[in-house]
Amino acid sequence: MIAELIAVGTELLLGSIANTDAQIISEKLSTMGITVHHHTVVGDNPLRLGEALEAARKRADIIITTGGLGPTCDDLTKQTICKIFGRELELHEDILEDIRAWFRTKLGRPMPENNVQQAMLPMGCTVFDNPVGTAPGCAFEEKGIHVLMLPGPPFECRYMLENRAARYLEKLTDGVIVSHEIKIFGMGESSVEEALREPMTRLANPTLAPYAKLNECMVRATAKAETREAAEAMLRPLVDQVLETLGDVVYGVDVESLEAAVSALLRERGLTLSAAESCTGGLVAKRMTDLPGASSVFRGGVVSYTNGVKAGVLGVDPALLEEFGAVSENVARAMAQRCRSICGSDLAVSLTGVAGPDRDDRGNEVGTVYIALASAEETICKKFSCGKGRGRDRVRSAAASSAFDMLRRKLLGLPL
Amino acid sequence: MIAELIAVGTELLLGSIANTDAQIISEKLSTMGITVHHHTVVGDNPLRLGEALEAARKRADIIITTGGLGPTCDDLTKQTICKIFGRELELHEDILEDIRAWFRTKLGRPMPENNVQQAMLPMGCTVFDNPVGTAPGCAFEEKGIHVLMLPGPPFECRYMLENRAARYLEKLTDGVIVSHEIKIFGMGESSVEEALREPMTRLANPTLAPYAKLNECMVRATAKAETREAAEAMLRPLVDQVLETLGDVVYGVDVESLEAAVSALLRERGLTLSAAESCTGGLVAKRMTDLPGASSVFRGGVVSYTNGVKAGVLGVDPALLEEFGAVSENVARAMAQRCRSICGSDLAVSLTGVAGPDRDDRGNEVGTVYIALASAEETICKKFSCGKGRGRDRVRSAAASSAFDMLRRKLLGLPL
Repeated sequence: MIAELIAVGTELLLGSIANTDAQIISEKLSTMGITVHHHTVVGDNPLRLGEALEAARKRADIIITTGGLGPTCDDLTKQTICKIFGRELELHEDILEDIRAWFRTKLGRPMPENNVQQAMLPMGCTVFDNPVGTAPGCAFEEKGIHVLMLPGPPFECRYMLENRAARYLEKLTDGVIVSHEIKIFGMGESSVEEALREPMTRLANPTLAPYAKLNECMVRATAKAETREAAEAMLRPLVDQVLETLGDVVYGVDVESLEAAVSALLRERGLTLSAAESCTGGLVAKRMTDLPGASSVFRGGVVSYTNGVKAGVLGVDPALLEEFGAVSENVARAMAQRCRSICGSDLAVSLTGVAGPDRDDRGNEVGTVYIALASAEETICKKFSCGKGRGRDRVRSAAASSAFDMLRRKLLGLPL
Repeated sequence: MIAELIAVGTELLLGSIANTDAQIISEKLSTMGITVHHHTVVGDNPLRLGEALEAARKRADIIITTGGLGPTCDDLTKQTICKIFGRELELHEDILEDIRAWFRTKLGRPMPENNVQQAMLPMGCTVFDNPVGTAPGCAFEEKGIHVLMLPGPPFECRYMLENRAARYLEKLTDGVIVSHEIKIFGMGESSVEEALREPMTRLANPTLAPYAKLNECMVRATAKAETREAAEAMLRPLVDQVLETLGDVVYGVDVESLEAAVSALLRERGLTLSAAESCTGGLVAKRMTDLPGASSVFRGGVVSYTNGVKAGVLGVDPALLEEFGAVSENVARAMAQRCRSICGSDLAVSLTGVAGPDRDDRGNEVGTVYIALASAEETICKKFSCGKGRGRDRVRSAAASSAFDMLRRKLLGLPL
């Protein structure tokens, strides 16, 4: 089965938002064994949407649209699809009642009358009711082509895909694609590809493909087979080969993130962590607490963005700040030790550096970051050059990732 | 001028990444008066890339590709474009030297030999050298159609667009499009559209369009004219009308974010802020310190993710935690007051709530968040129901946004 995604929305063409719906849906389809050949984005323009639908029906078995199901006058997806596929729209009273109830109970105000058009759906369609928003989705089949309509807001799109459209799509697929993601920190995409050139070029099924991610990269091993078990059996020796070739730069297989890997290690060992952050300004804590259940391994920390907070809250000796400056090994070490002590955690990590846009008043370059790790036995500190020349956000995210990798290596007894 | 964007990369079709390059480029083009009608994504597949290029050359004046300029064997953008447009590739020795230098100086290792293909460019093209990565971009004109190739990694794409491709594109445009973004917190997209229905439907140029964003929405007013001044003159009365209609839910015009609005207000008034975060786990601090120069208004704070840190570091009375629980008005107030005191800031904000996935042990629902604001004169506290039923990330981001809106209202003397 070949699928094609069509996103509808002038805001996408104006660059107000990225087409994250396409990502969400593509990821799901790939796990279901449905291949995606095209994503298309058109504006709130029935002519160009119509052309995109005509092109898609010639080359795809499944067409999934996102967006254009809202209550406003430029929301024209259903009308255009009905025109192209020769269907009428009809009012669904039960859906209208759901929308009225949503406004009453969730938003605490009456439904504006223009929301009535959200309850108009193609005749004979499968309705995807939407408990997380006002726009219902739907699906129908016409001459062997399946057309699915999902709402545009990413949270609604994801929910409706997982809880509504997935069931519809499962009935259409044959075979399964299974993928494993081998996550890598500290080795570039080109080098990974050179190391794995032989299996990458040799294989057609399973396949091995490298991807660059923010501050890191990964290799995805994918197999297609009749059953999940058969696909897994094809993947096992391949994944083992990759792990052996790449060594300890691999931080996990099918692990969400470096912080998730660290969190799992802390949990296994019954240890807790705290963080004292200067240049990252809360990003390490934010990433740790993105994970549900973080409180069992992460106690919290101090965002010591100014010297006053480093001294007053963390308790770093002001003489150290004076003599060595905030961006220094001595201050990083003191921050980690003090943080560990006041937060009562087994481990503490600290980061102090120059996020930019300018170098600091002691001449430290943008990207210079000291990261220290304090435990009961010792405090170690490393100097990094993070996200060089790639802007403030990259410096901060690379620094946070480096801190998580230091933690991972410490917890696993790997060389730092 | 009509532009079309074609992104090349199987990772996009597999959903590994979102097509943020299309967003970056579309946003830039819209400010240059270049209209985008289509985004297309195809895999690393020369046949489908060729078909996409053939479709684009029939309907666009400018084709911009992203991705497929890397060193690996599935990077085929330049070869495919050359085939469709009848050009040859040639080696650029100076570009090859740049790439070798990048590996030597930035990455500290020799260039892998497969990177040589990155220095192969279409004959007679304008070269966009790439100082932030290894893949150069380029552009050429063929029978009135301009084809531009940019690298795929978003940071490189953005840099190459702003610093290389923009100059090439500026020569092609006539007229300018000017937009202003009116940013709104606390009013939904449907209600905004109902309030502004009259100017939205009346106008063709300038136009007024609503957009839903994460936790907030905005209205974009756009005018096309021969000069920037003429466009601005068309926009002024329209923007004033929107501001008057919507009132104090507007937090700014052309302001990056709620936190940027708060940061500007703090700077104007010479005030400093600190934050004590429980459920948001550092997100408020992270968002404040995303802004360059944050240290002049943001002193830092405490991520008091556990009761131990609330008591031990912030100094919240353990009896309060015991009696009312961490998620309570009393604890929120104490957190804000203690944070203000230990961080030495003029204002302090605190957040304590239930991010989920489950309700807390005292039965507080997911999304319940108490936000307190302490100043020299008073401490105010409000209870919010954040991101109801929309998952942990949404609860946290809605809570942080609500805190920033409370701060904005406090600083402007608006009703809270």
